[in-house]
Amino acid sequence: MSTLFTHVTALLMDEQATTLTNGYVAVEGAHITYVGAQRPQGPFDQEIDCTGQVMLPGLVNAHTHIPMTLLRGYGGGHDLHTWLHQYIFPAEAKLDDRAVAAGAALGLAEMIASGVTCIADMYLRTHAIAQQVLQAGISANLSCGGVYFGDPDHFSPDACGDCHNQRALTQEWHGAGDGQILVDTSIHGEYTSSAPLWQWMADWAQQHRQRMHVHISETQAEHQACLARHGRTPIQVLDQYGVWEQGGIAAHCVYTTPEDWAMMAQKGVSCVHNPYSNLKLGSGIAPIPAMAKAGVNLCLGTDGMSSHNSADLFADIKLAAVLHNGAACDPMALSPRKALEMATVCGARALGRPTGQIVPGKAADLILVDFTAPNLTPCHDVTENLVFAAHGSNVTMNMARGKVIYQNGTFYTLDLERIRWEVAHYALPRIFEDRKG
Amino acid sequence: MSTLFTHVTALLMDEQATTLTNGYVAVEGAHITYVGAQRPQGPFDQEIDCTGQVMLPGLVNAHTHIPMTLLRGYGGGHDLHTWLHQYIFPAEAKLDDRAVAAGAALGLAEMIASGVTCIADMYLRTHAIAQQVLQAGISANLSCGGVYFGDPDHFSPDACGDCHNQRALTQEWHGAGDGQILVDTSIHGEYTSSAPLWQWMADWAQQHRQRMHVHISETQAEHQACLARHGRTPIQVLDQYGVWEQGGIAAHCVYTTPEDWAMMAQKGVSCVHNPYSNLKLGSGIAPIPAMAKAGVNLCLGTDGMSSHNSADLFADIKLAAVLHNGAACDPMALSPRKALEMATVCGARALGRPTGQIVPGKAADLILVDFTAPNLTPCHDVTENLVFAAHGSNVTMNMARGKVIYQNGTFYTLDLERIRWEVAHYALPRIFEDRKG
Repeated sequence: MSTLFTHVTALLMDEQATTLTNGYVAVEGAHITYVGAQRPQGPFDQEIDCTGQVMLPGLVNAHTHIPMTLLRGYGGGHDLHTWLHQYIFPAEAKLDDRAVAAGAALGLAEMIASGVTCIADMYLRTHAIAQQVLQAGISANLSCGGVYFGDPDHFSPDACGDCHNQRALTQEWHGAGDGQILVDTSIHGEYTSSAPLWQWMADWAQQHRQRMHVHISETQAEHQACLARHGRTPIQVLDQYGVWEQGGIAAHCVYTTPEDWAMMAQKGVSCVHNPYSNLKLGSGIAPIPAMAKAGVNLCLGTDGMSSHNSADLFADIKLAAVLHNGAACDPMALSPRKALEMATVCGARALGRPTGQIVPGKAADLILVDFTAPNLTPCHDVTENLVFAAHGSNVTMNMARGKVIYQNGTFYTLDLERIRWEVAHYALPRIFEDRKG
Repeated sequence: MSTLFTHVTALLMDEQATTLTNGYVAVEGAHITYVGAQRPQGPFDQEIDCTGQVMLPGLVNAHTHIPMTLLRGYGGGHDLHTWLHQYIFPAEAKLDDRAVAAGAALGLAEMIASGVTCIADMYLRTHAIAQQVLQAGISANLSCGGVYFGDPDHFSPDACGDCHNQRALTQEWHGAGDGQILVDTSIHGEYTSSAPLWQWMADWAQQHRQRMHVHISETQAEHQACLARHGRTPIQVLDQYGVWEQGGIAAHCVYTTPEDWAMMAQKGVSCVHNPYSNLKLGSGIAPIPAMAKAGVNLCLGTDGMSSHNSADLFADIKLAAVLHNGAACDPMALSPRKALEMATVCGARALGRPTGQIVPGKAADLILVDFTAPNLTPCHDVTENLVFAAHGSNVTMNMARGKVIYQNGTFYTLDLERIRWEVAHYALPRIFEDRKG
C-alpha cells in the first residue's frame, strides 16, 4: 500500500525545525519514503489532499494505564488514600481479560481520534491489551509493572507472578506485528517492590535488550520514604541494581534531584512528564525546565484515565508549555517547540521507536490537524496554534504504520459500537456487580 | 417562542447541587419556566430530545478581550515586554471598527461552539463589539478599559477619550437588546491610569449603577510598583476612590492579599481567575483556594486569545480544578464542583446576570454536552466527566436567551463564511499591511 499526501503543510520535527509548505509526503508500506517540494514519481494507491490541514508526526503518549479508561471519574472527590484503597484497587481486583480488553479498546479509540500513534503502557493482564493494540494498528511498548511485597529473603523468580508475566509477555509479544508491539521490562515502583525483584528485572532487561519502565518519585511521601529506607533516591537505588543499563522511561520524576538528572542524561533514561495527573492528584510540579537544562530526554504522558481524565495529549502539550512558565514566573521557561518535541520526537526516543519525525525512513505515523476550524483561525504561527490553540478534536486523520486508521470521525480498525457494548454490558457490570439489582 | 427539552439529565447548579435525571426543562421566550420530573402542559413550538446529552447552564467567560482573536499566536516566543511593545500594541494601533468587528465575531463563534452564553469583555472600539454580540445572541457585559497616562493635575473629563467612551457606550448600549448588553464602567488597571480617572469612573458607576471591571495585581511587578507608589495594593488604592461601591470584577488577582480579599467579600467584588493566561504569560498562580475560604466570589475567564490561545472555557474549568491541587500538593484543594460553579453560577453573580442556573425564572442560557462521545464514556459521575473529561467540542447545542444559536456544528446567528472572509481579507491585511507585497 502506498500513499501520496499532497499540498502538505507540516512541522517535520527534524533537528532543523523545518516547516514544509505546500509539499509532498510519500508513504510506502509502513514507512515514509519521500518528503519534499517536488511531486515524487508514482503511481500511488491513494492520494490525500492536505489543503487546509497541518501534518504532524503522530503523537507519542509515553505513560498510560489504558484499561483504566473504564474507571474515568470513578471515586473522585476523595483523598488519595481513600480513592486508591476504597475505589481503584477493589475495582481493579474484579477485572478479567475481557474487561481489560474492553477498557483498552475504549482508551485506544479516544487516543487514536486525538492523534496518538504510539504509547507506552503499564498495566495488568497485558496480553489482553496487546491483542487490542495489534487490532487498533498503533505501536506500543507494553509492560506489566512488577510488584513484590513479599519477604526479600524468600523471593523466588519461579514463584513470582510478575517474573512469570515478564517472561510470558516477552515470549508471546515482544516484536509482534513486525515490531508494532515491544515489551518493556517493568518495575511498578521502588515503593512496591524490593531488591531481589529489581535484580531479576535488571538481568532480564539486559538479557533481552529491553527498555525499562518504572514510576519514579511521583509523590513527596514516596520519595522521602525511599531516602529514609535506602539513603538514596528511588532512581539511584534502582540504578545500583543495574535497572537502567538498557535505558528506559521514568514516569513522573516530580521529586528527582540534579544527581538523578545527571545519571538519567548519561544512561539514556527519559523522564515522562504527566502534568495533568501530577496536578490533579496533588503530587506537585515536576522540575521540567531544570531537567531540560541537565540534558534529560523529556517526553509526555497522560497517565491513566482515572487521574487525568482525558486521553487528549494536545491538552498535556499545552499544559506543559504553560505550567512551568507560571510556576517559575518566566514566560520563556519552556518553549512551545519544546513541548511539541516532548510529544513527538522525544517520546519516540524514549520508547526506542523510529517515529516522531516526518523524515524518509521513519515510520509512517502521521496525523492531520484541521486548520480551517474557527479555533485555529487565524494562523500567525503553526507551532503556536498547534501547542496553544489545537484540541484533539481538530485531528481529522490518523495514519499509523502506513495505514489510515481514523479519518473524519470514522475508525477503520476499531468497531466503536462493539467496544461501547463490551464496556457497558460486560466490563462495567463485572466491576460494579454490587451496583446491580 | 417556546421550547420543551425532554429526557433531560442536567446539573442545575442550584444550591442543593441537584442533578435532574430524565426530566423536563421548559423555556418560554428568554426564560426558563419549568424544571422537573413531570412533563409540563404544552403546547411548545419545539421539542428537543436530550437523550445521551447532559444539560448545563451556559458558561460565563468573565474576562475576555474578544477581538484579540485576530492576534492568536502572534508574537509568541518572546518575553512579555517585547511581545507587548513590538507585536501586540503596534498591531492593535492599526485596528479599525470593521477589523474589531471581524475579530469579535470570530471569537464569538469559537465561544458559542464551546458552550459560552455570557461574557464580560474589556477592549477598545467597544461599540463595534456590541453590534456583533447583539447579532450573535449571547449576553455580554462590555467595557472599554479606561487609561490615563497624562498629568493628573491636568486631567479633564471633557478631554479624556476614555471618559467620552464610557459616556457614549452607556448612552448607546447600556441595556440594549432587552438587557442582552450591559455596559460596565471600567478602568484598565491601576498602573495605566491615575486618581482623577479613578474618581471620575467611580462617580460614573455610582450615578449609572454600573458594575466595575478592572485588571488587578496580574503580575508581581505591577503589584509591587503600586505598593511602592501608594503604600497600598492596587485594589485598595482604587477602593479609596469609591471604585468598588457598585461591586464588579477584578481580573487576575494573582498577588492580592488577605486584606484585599476581606474587602472584596464585603463589597461584592468578584475575582476572575484566568489560569491559562496567568501560566502562559508567567504571571504566577493566583491564591484561589485561600480566596474561596475568605468568601470571595470566584469566577473564570479565558483572557484574550493572545495569552491563552483558545476560547474553550472547559479547558479553564479543568485547569482550575487541577492547578491548585498541584500547587498546594493537596488533591482536595479545589473541588470539581467548585470549578464548575466558577464557570456558571458564580460567573453570573459576578456579572449581575440572572443566568448560570437551570431554575425557573432564570435566563434560558442552556447547553447540551454529548455524553455518548468516547471521551465521556463511561460516566461514573456527571460532574467528574464535565470537569475533567469534557472538551468544548463535546457541546452539541447552545441556547442563549431562549434561542438556539448553535447546534451540531451549525451557527444560526453567525455567518461563519462571511466572518472568515472578513478576517482573512479585511482585518488581517489591515493589521499586517507591511506583510503585503
